[in-house]
Amino acid sequence: MQTTRTTPSRLAKRASYDAATIHPILDDALFCTVSYCLNGQPMAIPTAFARKGDILYIHGSVGSHFIRSIENGEPVCISVMLADGLVLAKSAFHHSVNYRSVVIFANAEKVTDENECMEALALITDHLIPGRWDDLRPTTASEMRKTTVLAFSLAEASAKLRTGGPNDDPEDEDLPTWAGVVPLQTVRQTPIPKVGDKDITLPDYLQ
Amino acid sequence: MQTTRTTPSRLAKRASYDAATIHPILDDALFCTVSYCLNGQPMAIPTAFARKGDILYIHGSVGSHFIRSIENGEPVCISVMLADGLVLAKSAFHHSVNYRSVVIFANAEKVTDENECMEALALITDHLIPGRWDDLRPTTASEMRKTTVLAFSLAEASAKLRTGGPNDDPEDEDLPTWAGVVPLQTVRQTPIPKVGDKDITLPDYLQ
Repeated sequence: MQTTRTTPSRLAKRASYDAATIHPILDDALFCTVSYCLNGQPMAIPTAFARKGDILYIHGSVGSHFIRSIENGEPVCISVMLADGLVLAKSAFHHSVNYRSVVIFANAEKVTDENECMEALALITDHLIPGRWDDLRPTTASEMRKTTVLAFSLAEASAKLRTGGPNDDPEDEDLPTWAGVVPLQTVRQTPIPKVGDKDITLPDYLQ
Repeated sequence: MQTTRTTPSRLAKRASYDAATIHPILDDALFCTVSYCLNGQPMAIPTAFARKGDILYIHGSVGSHFIRSIENGEPVCISVMLADGLVLAKSAFHHSVNYRSVVIFANAEKVTDENECMEALALITDHLIPGRWDDLRPTTASEMRKTTVLAFSLAEASAKLRTGGPNDDPEDEDLPTWAGVVPLQTVRQTPIPKVGDKDITLPDYLQ
């Protein structure tokens, strides 16, 4: 939703408020950064998350200072950034980055319903490793008691992105400097089994 | 430096205050997230940066709301996170992430010395694309006037990291569930030349 605080002051043409733009960025990102203010002091914590519809879930230890600082609905800013490429222009000035980013202004709602908590943990697990949850033993009541799940509305989310090659000044166009894009990608490498484990086949979802 | 706000409430054993730990993490990361408070509202912006000694530099447009919000020394929290691997345990509860992160509490100092500004821009450019700066035409006085460079002390920086395999509960050790680490890596792919450029050789530093 476009509001004063979700409208960028720079390059507002790169901003979007469509779920169709925002959701895939959140689904492609593995981690977000949760920022909050503690007596005027900004704090930031990177963490795993998952999205379901218009809700973003995170989890943490019930004892975490971070979780306790935001679980009562203090304002947070959740940011996600996927760097897709380095944009090399003819001038340093026009160097840029191809990225897909999302910023969410929201307030935590502590999830108290047990089924919703469990579902959120499954979603967070499967967001990082699709297919993992169903391969695991059930989470115990004791483990659940140690875990807080927080939900954030995506109502005030915005995306900002850049794609394409460099935008050079006309007078630089003919410089013999190499210009273009160096694509960046996060890749998953060959899984490394736990030391001591023997004869456990790598599951299909990790192939 | 260890201070109250750089001491994690959870897993403090994973924290470090050594330049020898902090500097390589900053040097390996391409982007940081700068968080700040605007009338109690947390804001967060991902941006490029560079390190020189105990100083971290960022830059932005002189007209940027973000830059103007922090250039007078308002407190910021700069965070960097490198995700090195997904840690798959026998239980969902013990799933984790191998990461290297840095959090810096600092206040911007606006760089006014022209030479230092230019050096910072060179460092930021070469941090993303080592060797690039010397291949570019000189940055003009007009371009410099449009650019603000901010310096942040690393005095109150801390690192937090995790390495290694999963830590399972003893009673889960013999479960037949695959456990281990899925390493993650950000890779640079083959550079894509700018549309319209012809006969410009890819420079050695991009090979």
